[in-house]
Amino acid sequence: MNLIKFRTYYEPLIQQEMAQLILSLSIPDSLKESMHYSLQAGGKRIRPILLLAVLHELSDKEHPEALKVAAAIEMIHTYSLIHDDLPSMDDDDLRRGMPTNHKVFGEAVAILAGDALLTYSFGIVARLQEVSSDDKVRLIDLMSVSAGAEGMVGGQVLDIEGEEKQLTLEELEQVHRLKTGALLTYSILAGGILAQASDEEIIALSQFGQHLGLAFQIQDDILDITGTSEELGKTAGKDESSEKSTYPSLLTLPKAKEKLNFHAAEAVNALEKLKGEKTLLVQLTQLIVQRKS
Amino acid sequence: MNLIKFRTYYEPLIQQEMAQLILSLSIPDSLKESMHYSLQAGGKRIRPILLLAVLHELSDKEHPEALKVAAAIEMIHTYSLIHDDLPSMDDDDLRRGMPTNHKVFGEAVAILAGDALLTYSFGIVARLQEVSSDDKVRLIDLMSVSAGAEGMVGGQVLDIEGEEKQLTLEELEQVHRLKTGALLTYSILAGGILAQASDEEIIALSQFGQHLGLAFQIQDDILDITGTSEELGKTAGKDESSEKSTYPSLLTLPKAKEKLNFHAAEAVNALEKLKGEKTLLVQLTQLIVQRKS
Repeated sequence: MNLIKFRTYYEPLIQQEMAQLILSLSIPDSLKESMHYSLQAGGKRIRPILLLAVLHELSDKEHPEALKVAAAIEMIHTYSLIHDDLPSMDDDDLRRGMPTNHKVFGEAVAILAGDALLTYSFGIVARLQEVSSDDKVRLIDLMSVSAGAEGMVGGQVLDIEGEEKQLTLEELEQVHRLKTGALLTYSILAGGILAQASDEEIIALSQFGQHLGLAFQIQDDILDITGTSEELGKTAGKDESSEKSTYPSLLTLPKAKEKLNFHAAEAVNALEKLKGEKTLLVQLTQLIVQRKS
Repeated sequence: MNLIKFRTYYEPLIQQEMAQLILSLSIPDSLKESMHYSLQAGGKRIRPILLLAVLHELSDKEHPEALKVAAAIEMIHTYSLIHDDLPSMDDDDLRRGMPTNHKVFGEAVAILAGDALLTYSFGIVARLQEVSSDDKVRLIDLMSVSAGAEGMVGGQVLDIEGEEKQLTLEELEQVHRLKTGALLTYSILAGGILAQASDEEIIALSQFGQHLGLAFQIQDDILDITGTSEELGKTAGKDESSEKSTYPSLLTLPKAKEKLNFHAAEAVNALEKLKGEKTLLVQLTQLIVQRKS
């Protein structure tokens, strides 16, 4: 399977699944529009694609509810972007080239739309029909850890606090492990759980996720320097102008690229421990390293 | 069992359970302090007490993990208060007589502490040891509905939008059913689920919760007029000065009191359908009607 074909096939389905999940809710119009707006604002859908790709590589049949779990994870990612963009956080007016949620719906509804997306994602998993209760509990447990204080939310706190000081490389890595890595790794593990992966496969997937998450974030830091605002759909050079600690600022740009390649290679190494095809996941790793936005 | 004794026994245990659950997390200090601050800021602990009281009435033995579920629900309630108090929402400086979370920790950390409490509450339920996976999934499913867009968060959106217009009594009731009633009812149902209640008992508990939730909110509206800021631990008369639609403003104060008594009586009626002792729940209903804060 070729990644371009795979994404072309699944991206509209992910979009459609999220739209259906939101439209099926009996909720106030403004809340529905606000939730829908940010979910449909585009983005690379890397987390859902990772889940679906892992499932595709590890299982010989499609899972009837994989799209629901993929959509739930994208909802968590989207809620985190809505909250991160708020004036009291990163204060961003643009996201993916469009006005941020609070610019369109106001801060109060934006905060609540984020809260609602987060809450809904747990309900979506709890209401799956074709997954055992044991596996649903496992998916929810890991989702809570990855998205919460010990994962993404904790990383966001460290990131905010890190803006005011020079971080060491270890501290910077910890920020990213939590802020970006935890949910990326969760997407991969969720694919493994749905595919009934063995314990060994889960360990390999976890290692793959951790290296991929760091590679993703290093490339993010590099793009902030080498990319244009047009390519990125957000203001380029923001890290540098705010004197934020990044891989290039701590290591120089060439050394950051070396580190990116190291983690990409380690990610691919981790895949060696999985049986069967790994083409899609190798291509996804390359995509993350080579992406321009 | 007497409600005063019951509360005196359980309130410190609830407090301790929440503290342990937060202190056990490996997370940034500021985030931990912010989460802990609002959880320990007092409050009536009505939701945890409701859960524990239902369990006490319906089951002849204590449940080893009821306090964990009770703590998780109080975390959801607390996150909703932290977000509600934000400048872009109700803009409150005081809560339970103490500075609100964002006044102490700043808006960014306050938003994230709320996000973390919400996320953690699902994880706490998912990690219970003495509850079957089926029941955990049921608890999580209902938790998501009660706390989310179709419940509490939706109610908060309606409440904000209602500030700008005169609501009908039906619209006001819908706001409260969602904003306060949904999570109160969930606390009651969670007690029922942990007690292995029958379907009929769950229906009766659900009716009890719906009337109790409305009674609770009507009394809240009444106290805003008849209470003092000192008693309430928050600014009294706020609804009136902001011309907010409330039961007294739509119905007059005496008629609002009548409606309060009606829902309290219906709540007690619903309890008739349960076997065994109902003393605690009847006393809790009286407490909610007669409370001064």
